[in-house]
Amino acid sequence: MNDYLFDPAALVAFSSEKMKKVNLYESPKLFCDIYCLEPGQSQKAHTHDANDKIYVALTGTCDVQIGDAIAPLAPGQVAVAPAGENHGVTNKSDDRATLLVVMAP
Amino acid sequence: MNDYLFDPAALVAFSSEKMKKVNLYESPKLFCDIYCLEPGQSQKAHTHDANDKIYVALTGTCDVQIGDAIAPLAPGQVAVAPAGENHGVTNKSDDRATLLVVMAP
Repeated sequence: MNDYLFDPAALVAFSSEKMKKVNLYESPKLFCDIYCLEPGQSQKAHTHDANDKIYVALTGTCDVQIGDAIAPLAPGQVAVAPAGENHGVTNKSDDRATLLVVMAP
Repeated sequence: MNDYLFDPAALVAFSSEKMKKVNLYESPKLFCDIYCLEPGQSQKAHTHDANDKIYVALTGTCDVQIGDAIAPLAPGQVAVAPAGENHGVTNKSDDRATLLVVMAP
């Protein structure tokens, strides 16, 4: 591994207070975070007028909301929140969950 | 699943001729593809002057080159090719491999 190679499994960090974000990379063009959710934690639905966001489930299963639709996202599955679409994630499971999140700022 | 939720495992497609790209999403801000590599297939190292690219290994293990460094990327691991860095992928394994690739155009 070098500066551009990341093992999210070795970098995840959880907080009992709220969903924790671990940043992997940030540039003027995009950023990449790991969202780490204990059971019951969430990122409330919100909208970015000008930013597309992509979720990739890494471990565990979160419910992802895009627009009015809510569906579980299992490891390896992908969700896209285009600019202007309401979106959020909730870990309704009994296990920790991690998501890779890429957004174009 | 709706228009914004994708299961790459159900969408992958391989070609005996060359690495196959399956597009999941494209907007003016970013696009998202699945790269599907049979054993021995590769995307030759190349450089984008103004685009950041992020690889997420989904299944199998590819060797990812970023700059002068080459390292295997196992499922769940992430590689970032910042604008201006030479980058490419090669499947040196005996198994098929798939990568999620996000790039800011």
